Amino acid sequence: MSRFGMYVKFTAKPGQRDNLVNILMEGAASEQSTKECELYIVNVSDTEPETIWVTEVWSDEEAHKASLAREDTREAIQRAMPLIEGVEATKIRPVGGKGL
Amino acid sequence: MSRFGMYVKFTAKPGQRDNLVNILMEGAASEQSTKECELYIVNVSDTEPETIWVTEVWSDEEAHKASLAREDTREAIQRAMPLIEGVEATKIRPVGGKGL
Repeated sequence: MSRFGMYVKFTAKPGQRDNLVNILMEGAASEQSTKECELYIVNVSDTEPETIWVTEVWSDEEAHKASLAREDTREAIQRAMPLIEGVEATKIRPVGGKGL
Repeated sequence: MSRFGMYVKFTAKPGQRDNLVNILMEGAASEQSTKECELYIVNVSDTEPETIWVTEVWSDEEAHKASLAREDTREAIQRAMPLIEGVEATKIRPVGGKGL
């Protein structure tokens, strides 16, 4: 299996970006011990005040799906949902480079 | 200064994606010793055959500009230009997470 990556663009409801960043950063912390999760970086935009981008790299797509099924992830998604206006994911296949 | 990140989408000319990937991977290799470059990951798309995405994280925006001015970078850009149909960059500001 090849590595699996995503750029996930979240649009927060007005005024909710930082609350959503905090939930996503908890998600990043909970993946610290997951060896199948190679990167989970939370980013904001200086030009789009409600935008958050998450850069994810997983060992394979199944590992990503397994994380979504975990109880802690499902609980975080429930808390995040009311803060989210929209989500768009771009799937990518990491080839390599610095940091992987 | 805060960290500086980019998602750079390259559209290769038909049939040139893998040649462009190779040049970008050389770029990643040449940043291995640059401590200001924290991530430089080359990705392809399984659905868009001419697309390459590069995920970059730098210590700050000045470090990124300095890398573009280096002789080896300029030489690589000269070799890459004939292979490129288009480039779009999305600037992002990394907050943190796993892998930084």
